[in-house]
Amino acid sequence: MPERLVVIGGDAAGMTAASQARRMRRADDLEIIVFEQSAYVSFSACGEPYFVGGWVEDFADLQVRTPEQFQAQGIDARIHHRVTAIDLDASRITVHHPGGDEQVGFDQLLYATGATAIRPPIEGLDLEGVHMLRTLDDAARLRSLVTSGVERAVVVGGGYIGLELAEAFHHVGIPTTVVTMMPTVLERTLDPDMADLVSDHMRSMGIRVETGFKVECLAGSGGSVAGVGCDDRSFPADLVVLALGSRPQVELAKDAGIPLGPTGAVAVDDHQRTGIDGVWSAGDCAEAHHRISGQPVNLHLGTVANKAGRIAGINLGGGDASFPGVLGTAITKVGDLEISSTGLTEGQAADAGLKAVAATINSTTAAHYWPGSSPMTVKAIAEKGSARLLGAQIVGGPGAGKRIDVFATAMWSDLPAHELAWTDLSYAPPFSGVWDPVHIAARKAGEKATS
Amino acid sequence: MPERLVVIGGDAAGMTAASQARRMRRADDLEIIVFEQSAYVSFSACGEPYFVGGWVEDFADLQVRTPEQFQAQGIDARIHHRVTAIDLDASRITVHHPGGDEQVGFDQLLYATGATAIRPPIEGLDLEGVHMLRTLDDAARLRSLVTSGVERAVVVGGGYIGLELAEAFHHVGIPTTVVTMMPTVLERTLDPDMADLVSDHMRSMGIRVETGFKVECLAGSGGSVAGVGCDDRSFPADLVVLALGSRPQVELAKDAGIPLGPTGAVAVDDHQRTGIDGVWSAGDCAEAHHRISGQPVNLHLGTVANKAGRIAGINLGGGDASFPGVLGTAITKVGDLEISSTGLTEGQAADAGLKAVAATINSTTAAHYWPGSSPMTVKAIAEKGSARLLGAQIVGGPGAGKRIDVFATAMWSDLPAHELAWTDLSYAPPFSGVWDPVHIAARKAGEKATS
Repeated sequence: MPERLVVIGGDAAGMTAASQARRMRRADDLEIIVFEQSAYVSFSACGEPYFVGGWVEDFADLQVRTPEQFQAQGIDARIHHRVTAIDLDASRITVHHPGGDEQVGFDQLLYATGATAIRPPIEGLDLEGVHMLRTLDDAARLRSLVTSGVERAVVVGGGYIGLELAEAFHHVGIPTTVVTMMPTVLERTLDPDMADLVSDHMRSMGIRVETGFKVECLAGSGGSVAGVGCDDRSFPADLVVLALGSRPQVELAKDAGIPLGPTGAVAVDDHQRTGIDGVWSAGDCAEAHHRISGQPVNLHLGTVANKAGRIAGINLGGGDASFPGVLGTAITKVGDLEISSTGLTEGQAADAGLKAVAATINSTTAAHYWPGSSPMTVKAIAEKGSARLLGAQIVGGPGAGKRIDVFATAMWSDLPAHELAWTDLSYAPPFSGVWDPVHIAARKAGEKATS
Repeated sequence: MPERLVVIGGDAAGMTAASQARRMRRADDLEIIVFEQSAYVSFSACGEPYFVGGWVEDFADLQVRTPEQFQAQGIDARIHHRVTAIDLDASRITVHHPGGDEQVGFDQLLYATGATAIRPPIEGLDLEGVHMLRTLDDAARLRSLVTSGVERAVVVGGGYIGLELAEAFHHVGIPTTVVTMMPTVLERTLDPDMADLVSDHMRSMGIRVETGFKVECLAGSGGSVAGVGCDDRSFPADLVVLALGSRPQVELAKDAGIPLGPTGAVAVDDHQRTGIDGVWSAGDCAEAHHRISGQPVNLHLGTVANKAGRIAGINLGGGDASFPGVLGTAITKVGDLEISSTGLTEGQAADAGLKAVAATINSTTAAHYWPGSSPMTVKAIAEKGSARLLGAQIVGGPGAGKRIDVFATAMWSDLPAHELAWTDLSYAPPFSGVWDPVHIAARKAGEKATS
């Protein structure tokens, strides 16, 4: 009898783990069954806004692999299967599927349920025309709506998904407003000075951005949504998308007694073990170690889910791998403005009790005289005294955003700001000034930190 | 009486050093005189091919700063002044200028003469229509030629400048051939497998590339060049540019007894001191420490010249700075193909006696389904056993090239390949797959190195 691995959740973390474990252990040694409640496994949530906006035309592109493909490699991936309970004492789960309920035993369990969109306490959520974006079905529904005559859209929420959706609606010609209760957009990843560059750009594109507006009510008319806000200040809309972030799906884990961490997500060690023998967790539902703050965090990023899933898979496959942690590096774009960040913002550094200094510099993506050169602003945050890099943010034209990876690599290696300032980065006029904007920001942050 | 700093050579290293020293010491403490033989100080040699090709329209853009601007900040920058001798015993130089010869004493001397284009032993170099590209005057001359009816151009040399010039000529509509005696283009920075991607792309653009062709003779007709090669195999041309690299200008130093290193360039320590009290050197004429090979190298790169110049300037200014060395990171483009490299090639690693493994992967610049996604190939080279990164090469579409900086930063920090494979790099479909191509190449190189 082979050992049996049951995976709850068939998206990035779950399927990556399953594939990795399968590569390391044959089917007669390890049976792998994945239960996925939706109709899809292994899909690209990050690609959804781009499908809604029409840049990605083929819905199938959002599916990295199909259940049949997994089947062919010896992974029993079952869609429309919703796990409803975990019995740790009996080492078995209960799963609900179109044919009824079933109990399935396991030797190893990977809890990879992911996250679910936050449904805020707003009046009018059930009106027609009010949507969220999390699943592929959500994406398909939104795509079909925006191509059939939406007049005005409001996106509630100024995070990555909110901004990407706003760009998508704008791209298909729908007058679009973003409203957020926060004082700025992207407030979890950008300090206000950098976030303002993003709002300004969105406004220059013709996207309305309203900050500091808390939505408590959606106005309706004949059962359909008519606007966001029911008082004096309101924004008319026949399409409203709530993009208020996501929370880890931990109900099953909690009910079963799998310990949660301080963030409310499943607590795991660096091997993705939950502390309960034979029970693992990875992805949006699990915590990860933040290399800068040293604290557990719960980030809902495809990069983290894939890496944590691979770690779990290596360990389930008989290897021994440790997840080295995260920096929270992320990137997006609105129009031709690229936006990226890594580590802590200045505000988060202060909240974490770190004494931080920040340097913000204005430079260009290429030599100033290069015809395609465009402005880019770089903010580098360093610890006072040591000049340890705590975070960085970049907002700028094409070519700006991916430079965040240089900061991320430096931070990963504990390279202090004043040393990053001397690194041998590439230069040619179509790509950079002779001192890359990363150098300049790092140098200034280093000077501030050590002066 | 202030101390007097004499700088020989008014380009990147010299002027950066002068500016840095001036920021740190007032004119009544340090007098700074720069002697520059040409008509320009502080110009962008790297921008020249783009001026020749017409992307950069304003000649003035290639001059970072004018002598007058330096004068205004208290630096006596004298153009058309050619230093002809250095007398170390008497601490003075002889300088030739339009008004005659002059002797000038110094307390500190910075030798920053740069490099000069290699003039190969080829018959017919004096024919009309045969050019080189090094100075701004060269660039102006070439620009004027290509806009006045060149029929066919041949670039001799397949290095960075050669390829950039070929793209420039092609861009203005001139049928262009690159010939190189080497088996591939860019042989100093790319291994043959990667270089072939570049030649293939150039050919697909309509630029002819002929490798393994040693030019021994230029054919002439009526005093003008008619072709490259005088035998059976030859390439007709009415414009021939020799781009065979450059050599450090060390004659003055050698005559004066300033020690040269094993590369033939001026030997310096990490403070840019030559070993002779009060005599410093920086830029293309000086050596630098290569962080991977551990050997002195003589690279002619604007990045190195600027950094070394700044180090010299800080030390001349009363500070204490060490140049941390180089990796030889470089980038260029031909059409929309980006080409970059850092560290050692596989061939150079072998030559240096290092046991190296290499992994080459084919990926895309963005998610495979993103409409602007294009192929990119990444080669990562690691030391067998330790998985220490020795070098990396990237060839690919827009967004590919600058990723070399992630390798450079990892190599700078001694982050081994298998650890780079887990770093938290940014991802969104318009920018990357969920595993960046850098990750994938690093992982494969790490696996090869440690298996």
